[in-house]
Amino acid sequence: MHNPVPEVSSDAVYDVIVLGAGPVGQNVAARARAGGLSVAVVERELVGGECSYWACIPSKAMLRPVVAVAEARRLDGARQAVTGPVDAAGVFRTRDRHVSSWDDTGQAQGLVDLGVHLVRGHGRVDGPRRVAVATPGDEIVRLAARHAVVVCTGSGAAVPDMPGIAEARVWTNRTATDTSKVPARLAVVGAGPVGVEMATAWQGLGSAVTLIAREARVLPQFEDFAGDLVGAALRQAGVDVRLDATVTSMRRPSPTGPVTLRLDDHSEVEADEVLVAVGRVPLTGDLGLESVGLSPGLWLDVDDTCRVRGIDGGWLYAAGDVNHRALLTHQGKYQARIVGEAIAAQAAGRTLDTSPWGRHAATADLHALPQVVFSDPEVAAVGLSAERAGRDGRAIRVVDVDLADTVMGARLYADDYVGRARLVLDSATDHVLGVTFVGFGVTELLHSATVAVAGQVPVSRLWHAVPSFPTISEVWLRLLEALRDAR
Amino acid sequence: MHNPVPEVSSDAVYDVIVLGAGPVGQNVAARARAGGLSVAVVERELVGGECSYWACIPSKAMLRPVVAVAEARRLDGARQAVTGPVDAAGVFRTRDRHVSSWDDTGQAQGLVDLGVHLVRGHGRVDGPRRVAVATPGDEIVRLAARHAVVVCTGSGAAVPDMPGIAEARVWTNRTATDTSKVPARLAVVGAGPVGVEMATAWQGLGSAVTLIAREARVLPQFEDFAGDLVGAALRQAGVDVRLDATVTSMRRPSPTGPVTLRLDDHSEVEADEVLVAVGRVPLTGDLGLESVGLSPGLWLDVDDTCRVRGIDGGWLYAAGDVNHRALLTHQGKYQARIVGEAIAAQAAGRTLDTSPWGRHAATADLHALPQVVFSDPEVAAVGLSAERAGRDGRAIRVVDVDLADTVMGARLYADDYVGRARLVLDSATDHVLGVTFVGFGVTELLHSATVAVAGQVPVSRLWHAVPSFPTISEVWLRLLEALRDAR
Repeated sequence: MHNPVPEVSSDAVYDVIVLGAGPVGQNVAARARAGGLSVAVVERELVGGECSYWACIPSKAMLRPVVAVAEARRLDGARQAVTGPVDAAGVFRTRDRHVSSWDDTGQAQGLVDLGVHLVRGHGRVDGPRRVAVATPGDEIVRLAARHAVVVCTGSGAAVPDMPGIAEARVWTNRTATDTSKVPARLAVVGAGPVGVEMATAWQGLGSAVTLIAREARVLPQFEDFAGDLVGAALRQAGVDVRLDATVTSMRRPSPTGPVTLRLDDHSEVEADEVLVAVGRVPLTGDLGLESVGLSPGLWLDVDDTCRVRGIDGGWLYAAGDVNHRALLTHQGKYQARIVGEAIAAQAAGRTLDTSPWGRHAATADLHALPQVVFSDPEVAAVGLSAERAGRDGRAIRVVDVDLADTVMGARLYADDYVGRARLVLDSATDHVLGVTFVGFGVTELLHSATVAVAGQVPVSRLWHAVPSFPTISEVWLRLLEALRDAR
Repeated sequence: MHNPVPEVSSDAVYDVIVLGAGPVGQNVAARARAGGLSVAVVERELVGGECSYWACIPSKAMLRPVVAVAEARRLDGARQAVTGPVDAAGVFRTRDRHVSSWDDTGQAQGLVDLGVHLVRGHGRVDGPRRVAVATPGDEIVRLAARHAVVVCTGSGAAVPDMPGIAEARVWTNRTATDTSKVPARLAVVGAGPVGVEMATAWQGLGSAVTLIAREARVLPQFEDFAGDLVGAALRQAGVDVRLDATVTSMRRPSPTGPVTLRLDDHSEVEADEVLVAVGRVPLTGDLGLESVGLSPGLWLDVDDTCRVRGIDGGWLYAAGDVNHRALLTHQGKYQARIVGEAIAAQAAGRTLDTSPWGRHAATADLHALPQVVFSDPEVAAVGLSAERAGRDGRAIRVVDVDLADTVMGARLYADDYVGRARLVLDSATDHVLGVTFVGFGVTELLHSATVAVAGQVPVSRLWHAVPSFPTISEVWLRLLEALRDAR
């Protein structure tokens, strides 16, 4: 499909225009450039996006020293070497280095080095294949796309409307990752991955954290045992975990004083700062989407090539958080590679392969989506949970393994190891549909499951994938034995 | 194949007789029992074998606290919490717990619980399908096997003949893992996995270690960069690494004094103890193998079902180290499962599936053998090295990735991260033939490669196995990108 150059009066025409220069936009641009296309990327804030400056990277930089010290403390012989607390100043120093002190010069140069035209400002779709950028100098730069416009603007923290929340000046993920002062008391509202990770980090850095969750357990989107084990560990680390609790109002009577949160059981929690981590909203409210017949403020509905549905000519794509397929950086980058290559392939007149697991279909979003929560113990899951697979009406088999009971590599990894794994099998095909690992040091184990699920490796072959002894990955042998012996 | 019961005057007839109650013998017994067969296991020493008491388990128990402390020290913010040395007494305490203080009561009971008859003593093959056991009370117990005898006697440390070596009273892997006194100076001769792991552990426990290797680098059986990175790290940890050096003699003039090692360049090394870790020999020297026409003292030559070649009736099997296919506990256990199931299947008159990757073929020994060296950085490899694949005459492609340069998850894992990965691809099939990871925290990452290699997952599908960001497993994305961009 060779699109004609649209008739525009604009200054600049590119093959592809990308809105948003986070990791997703960067990867779209890189793949489109690799396909020989000209690319403009529009960024209103920092090149590198939320992930680089206020999410994945700073949060993991803050968590890793906390977990490393906890890991040493869990072993007789190592414990004795650890005598002091984590040094928050050192942690912030490392974090600042990893986020380049919130300076995007390096990442912007990276785009330029790719031959991308970087346009600073707020980009809005301005009719078919057109983008208008409001620059920091209040000029309007008009761009036109020969082939595609790709929305990669991501998501922002959802902040619920609630009495007193403005006065409380709550933290979002941004404040929680760019602050360098440890509050004596931190209340965290929301116990999804962000809430749990930040509760872990700040408790480790010295705050007395209260974690407030509406649900009956933390991490409700995972297998139940994940929330049970992580919730218990948070409590053991000193976090005050309040479950089945909803915040109904906040007040901060003195600007320099504490915040009081009122819960639905009429109890109160006092804290020096409050992090709200109750979800994400799409950053589509001010993108000019109404100019092409879409409703602003909604997640963008896309097909498996991440093409926005309902657009004449199919020139609009959306990749990353903004399409709501998977709110995870790595998955956005995966979509971005597919989008960039699909646009380049079509521009070159090639047919797309959009069959399942084909080159131009983001099939893994649906069937092999991996996620890690960098809590302590860690949670690492891919594919379908037992509950989800059952809801889909599939014939499944589910096996669980306790790592401390059955995996020598786990017992050697930590005294009093805590961990559990679950495997969900498609009874009809003998393919693994999903795996969840919870435990100390299981993060890097996840990719074995991701390869098994995405690779559709049958169980008969997985018996030949021998886990090295004595590693934690021997949990795979225990899972296979559980499947075998339950038959 | 239903074998007739041999005519014997023996006291006891079993379907299967297993020589050696290490992990391999235990797994043969378990699978044969699961197949409904009667099983006797003969053990002359401890039920649980070398791995449980003098190899994998105590060595990893000694390494883990050393590495955990080193990991915390590698992170600003965590480093400040670590003020003291590793506490050797605590480490030995943990190790003693993991080896049950060299008491096999629990593991022996495990066999009994399986319905296995445990015979204590030195078993020797005594003609076809017969075994004679010399008991600790100097009696001879005669056993006969209806279906199979399985040799799982493993290997022992090779101790070379050398002037003064007896007088030096050298350590082997046994002494190196059951000693509870830290020598001020330890010389380690041999830089394979055992030498490197024990140099790492004892240096971490407080010894001043000198590591002496005949080769130009440590860990010579791995990709060159493994030895380069681990060798440099050992030096940084304070180990005196002597490469291209051969010990020609030892002397310990006073029984309570130090040992002096003389090297081929006429230099000398003085140490309080010397660990010799230069290889393994098969424990087949005193097994009565000559009674069935085999030469004692050699590795046993087996087919892919681990049946010893050249035995009439095919009743003799050998699994684990003793067959020299793979000197690794996990691989011996893999063979053991196959042997036990093959014997049970044949006893029930079923046909074996010995095709590649079939149920009764230990195909992974040849194509997907995983190995971890628990050094610091760790080495984790599976399948063919580039050199080996090239030697096999295959058309291959090789890509390398530096983890510190390209993997954010690695950089977050440790300040000044050190690591490298290599992928070897079969150009014809697009299957991964081998992967080597070297780096901090890469051990659990290995199983992803093992699943990819054993599962023969093509590269086109591996693109859909998305590594979670920011984990170290994103090295997979970098490897795939390197393959793509080099095409």
